[in-house]
Amino acid sequence: MKHLLALVLLLAAGGASAAPATTPDRIEPPFWWPGMKEPDLQLMLHGEAIGNLQAAVDYPGVEVVGTESTANPNYLFINLRLAPDVKPGTFPIQLLENGTRRSAFDYQLRARTAPPRGQRGFDSTDAIYLVTPDRFANGDAGNDIAPGMQEGPDREAPGGRHGGDIAGMRAALEYIANMGFTAIWPNPLLENNQPAYSYHGYSATDHYRIDPRFGSNEEYREFVAAAGEKGIGVIQDVVLNHIGDGHWWMTDLPDTSWLNGAGTGRGEYAITNHSRFTPVDPHASEADQRLFTEGWFVDSMPDLNQRHPLLANYLIQNTLWWIEYAGISGIRADTYAYSDPGFLEKWAGRIRREYPGFNIVGEEWTRNAALVAHWQRGEREPATGGRLQSMMDFPLHYALREGLTEKESWSSGLIRLYEGLANDFQYPNPERLVIFGGNHDTSRLFSQLGEDLALFRMAVAYLATMRGIPQFFYGDELLMTSPRHRADGIVRSDFPGGWNGDKANGFTGAGLTDSQRKAQAYVRALFRWRRTQPVIHRGQLTHFAPVDGPYVYFRHDNDNVVMVAMNKGDKPAPFRKERFAEIIGGKNRGVDVVSGRGYQLNHLQIPPREVMVLEIQ
Amino acid sequence: MKHLLALVLLLAAGGASAAPATTPDRIEPPFWWPGMKEPDLQLMLHGEAIGNLQAAVDYPGVEVVGTESTANPNYLFINLRLAPDVKPGTFPIQLLENGTRRSAFDYQLRARTAPPRGQRGFDSTDAIYLVTPDRFANGDAGNDIAPGMQEGPDREAPGGRHGGDIAGMRAALEYIANMGFTAIWPNPLLENNQPAYSYHGYSATDHYRIDPRFGSNEEYREFVAAAGEKGIGVIQDVVLNHIGDGHWWMTDLPDTSWLNGAGTGRGEYAITNHSRFTPVDPHASEADQRLFTEGWFVDSMPDLNQRHPLLANYLIQNTLWWIEYAGISGIRADTYAYSDPGFLEKWAGRIRREYPGFNIVGEEWTRNAALVAHWQRGEREPATGGRLQSMMDFPLHYALREGLTEKESWSSGLIRLYEGLANDFQYPNPERLVIFGGNHDTSRLFSQLGEDLALFRMAVAYLATMRGIPQFFYGDELLMTSPRHRADGIVRSDFPGGWNGDKANGFTGAGLTDSQRKAQAYVRALFRWRRTQPVIHRGQLTHFAPVDGPYVYFRHDNDNVVMVAMNKGDKPAPFRKERFAEIIGGKNRGVDVVSGRGYQLNHLQIPPREVMVLEIQ
Repeated sequence: MKHLLALVLLLAAGGASAAPATTPDRIEPPFWWPGMKEPDLQLMLHGEAIGNLQAAVDYPGVEVVGTESTANPNYLFINLRLAPDVKPGTFPIQLLENGTRRSAFDYQLRARTAPPRGQRGFDSTDAIYLVTPDRFANGDAGNDIAPGMQEGPDREAPGGRHGGDIAGMRAALEYIANMGFTAIWPNPLLENNQPAYSYHGYSATDHYRIDPRFGSNEEYREFVAAAGEKGIGVIQDVVLNHIGDGHWWMTDLPDTSWLNGAGTGRGEYAITNHSRFTPVDPHASEADQRLFTEGWFVDSMPDLNQRHPLLANYLIQNTLWWIEYAGISGIRADTYAYSDPGFLEKWAGRIRREYPGFNIVGEEWTRNAALVAHWQRGEREPATGGRLQSMMDFPLHYALREGLTEKESWSSGLIRLYEGLANDFQYPNPERLVIFGGNHDTSRLFSQLGEDLALFRMAVAYLATMRGIPQFFYGDELLMTSPRHRADGIVRSDFPGGWNGDKANGFTGAGLTDSQRKAQAYVRALFRWRRTQPVIHRGQLTHFAPVDGPYVYFRHDNDNVVMVAMNKGDKPAPFRKERFAEIIGGKNRGVDVVSGRGYQLNHLQIPPREVMVLEIQ
Repeated sequence: MKHLLALVLLLAAGGASAAPATTPDRIEPPFWWPGMKEPDLQLMLHGEAIGNLQAAVDYPGVEVVGTESTANPNYLFINLRLAPDVKPGTFPIQLLENGTRRSAFDYQLRARTAPPRGQRGFDSTDAIYLVTPDRFANGDAGNDIAPGMQEGPDREAPGGRHGGDIAGMRAALEYIANMGFTAIWPNPLLENNQPAYSYHGYSATDHYRIDPRFGSNEEYREFVAAAGEKGIGVIQDVVLNHIGDGHWWMTDLPDTSWLNGAGTGRGEYAITNHSRFTPVDPHASEADQRLFTEGWFVDSMPDLNQRHPLLANYLIQNTLWWIEYAGISGIRADTYAYSDPGFLEKWAGRIRREYPGFNIVGEEWTRNAALVAHWQRGEREPATGGRLQSMMDFPLHYALREGLTEKESWSSGLIRLYEGLANDFQYPNPERLVIFGGNHDTSRLFSQLGEDLALFRMAVAYLATMRGIPQFFYGDELLMTSPRHRADGIVRSDFPGGWNGDKANGFTGAGLTDSQRKAQAYVRALFRWRRTQPVIHRGQLTHFAPVDGPYVYFRHDNDNVVMVAMNKGDKPAPFRKERFAEIIGGKNRGVDVVSGRGYQLNHLQIPPREVMVLEIQ
């Protein structure tokens, strides 16, 4: 890092005296669209010694408001204003020096097209399938090695690139839809031209380019369209907090203060304290608050200073660009609270303004529901402070894994699910939380549950029937395992059947064990059923304290009643129908939504170590 | 229970045909005061077959609005209205049957007197000493056996009566004041004429009588006055949720529906589910909500149905009576959330109206700060739903015991104190929370801390300097111990020196071990110092994440800065002064408030396993 920053300073100091070429080698965003609610567009140009140029445009409805530059003479920012009635088209932008034309480039305003799933975002009618693209399916072995990319394939290395790609995800859309899922969240797909660990995608090196080992921008756009045709929305994983140290900026930083901890003249930075309470803690020291948002995640991930107005603009426009270009349905915002709070407000506010039906789910990794609630915006809350409609429900994630695996007592076991859910009183909008058993950062769901098939079924039934938007991690339906300590590369193992020659194939079922087949069928049955159930999407939720063993809850509306009953014990649990009279009333028949078997409620027993999902009739 | 209820029904059925005596044997409240903001006063009379009588009064400013009765003919409720200018005095109340005088009794309106400490309640300028009266000091051996009381003394039995009393507490006021405490909270003193376990006081059998084994009403009143002379306020422990099954009502219930679970004709009741989330849980079933507030604590504690308007009035007037009669400074409300929410609103609202400067602290025994916050009323919150200004800070209690004893890691140890305190963003008024290391229901503080003197000092320093109102349990200053599992009778062991012939004496210091003497001196030094420190009472609090070992926080205002630094490690921790520059500025001297020793901050080391409380100069 010190080496790179020294280089930047050298270039910055030396650039002015070199003979300037005036042709930009980068123009970002590469194109734009007419008709955005915000008329301003800021282009960032990179090119040797172009910082002192002016810009001119002769196109109806496009006005050059001015230019800006930084201490680095190799960047020029052109502020354009687009009239509400500006037409799509391509026009030259002239670059001038003291009124004399030095060069020009064409810029395009593209016609906007309707997004594949409309502008509806994602909500509790959806169920999300999370995929680590490098590890899911290798649809195009031809892109495993890509020109200019530092890291090549090494399928044997847990931290290496395995070759999965967009073509693989596209080929799997039919499988995903058949499993009952209606949205796909791939880990980030932007170029990560890092020397190692580039597969995970969280170290962007180019904000406007899909990593060529995953495919092209156009392939991504076609993938989103193809998903839309199957009713599947795509949720893009956006990282606002940091970049990879192989980012193209890093050899010629637009401004040293684009990075936190840089620009001090010492090239020093500190690692974040992860003190995620500091944004809300009334007693937090300023030093801790600063270190939380300005500290780096790891040495290889420079932390962005979003208080820099040019960088803030850049990031906001970049997000809008991908929404419009690819037609995605939503965003998953990585390490949400680690960014500057003022910036988050601008970023989220602008997206809401341009795309009112869009949805963003933020990551705030904490057991504390109050903290997650702080970040959730709801109808009851003003849309300030970067609050989002959806947040990842980490508190319920912990409640689920601990509630299912702990021994039952008055303060452990199923009571954690009951009390965890009671915390909903803190949320403006609990039904917009994204619930999950595991993701790419946790251990595998089946491993969390001690490889216990009964507990696995309980977790799946819970996720398929609980309030909120369920999210499932690829391969959990095949009982994929991992160590219980953090082991990212193994958690994100290859989906069987994603590679030619795989012995087992999750897509076709070939070579799966009996347990795998049953688990997959169970997930499929419940999530396919869920897709058609307004009572699960929007029905009320009423639960009963697990005081006498089983945990019983209902989803109910004017038309339907669904009962979920979990018995962790080793003995059948009698169902005391009268306890649930306020929901069941006089009804006495329950039909298992997985098996189709019917039961008389007044003779019902919840079998040992079993979960039942019954439609009450 | 079934037996008693049958008796009630028998009396209720048979009373009307018996020859009625018309003289009440109970009149409650026994007297009252003019000048309350609420003009209405409801007298409850008990006497054979008096339910159908009328009442008449001839006294200026006293109007009989009417009478009410229940299904039990042995109770008569007289509704009086007092004019704003009614004078103190005694007047007869006539009881009439069809206009004919049947009997009369004198009723008194007493002149109000100023309460001993004024009307200031208690707040963060105070420090509370909690005492279990039966176990603290036996000041009057003559009342160990009292006429009519079922349980006699048995000092050897952990669950028996040991003889402590009001006289003992009164004699100890000098000790308590010298230790630095400014308020005393005795466990309940009302008559508990139960056959066993009557010492703890939570099973009232007469709402208007101090248990004669503790003393008389008048002795209690004199004790409060004597405490006030030493600047000590008395906090009365009030139980609204339940009574003892030996209560005088139980042989002749005013109304079967005064008890929850009774009045069903079956005399049946259920034990509470302790589902303390149900008042706030948006998904709670009505059945669970009902069982929480209507279920009984234990078989020997009938649960009161405060939705009954006559009982609600009775309980509200009873609380006002004790406030006015004894001149107490505050109330500790037992098992607060277990009572009917509508009743709590009326009860707390009426107290606030009559005694605006008074303070009530509620018990909500949970780790969940959001739930405690729900019950706290602050300046930012409307005074509805039975919310109180003060709540017991159970979440910080758990953070303290776990934070001090757990091994340090990113998610355990001192980080619990840091993150626990960050939860203050949820409270309307964190400085009005009552903080504590232990109480009569927890294991002993020293035992919680593994009998580790260093951790004990940390806990004491924390309690003496943290925001809020500290509460200390009698004998914790002498390192009293208990099992770590629940063992009430041992937790509430006798304070050494409270009984004639005790080998050791905590009041005089005689016979204490060296460790005990040091611990007591440490508590005394810190709490005496605290008494004089506005910066602790009202100063700002700023803390720094314990990322590099020690946990450091400051109390600071325009005049003073106090630093608390805890080092749990086995090595000295260097004090990195620059990290705290935002508070310390250019100051460089710290003076230990216990030892008086001075330190240069730029050479400071926090000694291993030590806490420092330094005034920064």
